[in-house]
Amino acid sequence: MDIEQAFGLVIKKYRLQRSMSQEKLAFESELDRTYISLLERGKRRPTINTLFAVSKVLEVKPHCIVRDIENLIHKNK
Amino acid sequence: MDIEQAFGLVIKKYRLQRSMSQEKLAFESELDRTYISLLERGKRRPTINTLFAVSKVLEVKPHCIVRDIENLIHKNK
Repeated sequence: MDIEQAFGLVIKKYRLQRSMSQEKLAFESELDRTYISLLERGKRRPTINTLFAVSKVLEVKPHCIVRDIENLIHKNK
Repeated sequence: MDIEQAFGLVIKKYRLQRSMSQEKLAFESELDRTYISLLERGKRRPTINTLFAVSKVLEVKPHCIVRDIENLIHKNK
């Protein structure tokens, strides 16, 4: 599993836990809905600014998202 | 302080703690020396892939770098 795929799975997990639509996440984080969809499918490389923007809307600390990514990559090596 | 500036300060801190040159960090992380210099001065927006690449060379977990960034931004609000 690569970093982009892990990022996508992690933000999707938090988004669904919060019963939030891609549209709402996109609107609140000032990103495009299509871009959120691409991110969740591991098709884009987010900047750390995107990481912070999405984290804020999902109400999870950015470093927790990154720790989840590390764990996912480690588990799927 | 913005996210790029905080990222630059944090990676510079770890690089200097390890007495590592920008050249060595650049070579080991397969990035350009000029790009490392721009990152450290907060002039570029790194992707999370760059975060992971630099973290590996600096032997610090990516989420620890991100937690340091959060703390720096919070302290300098």
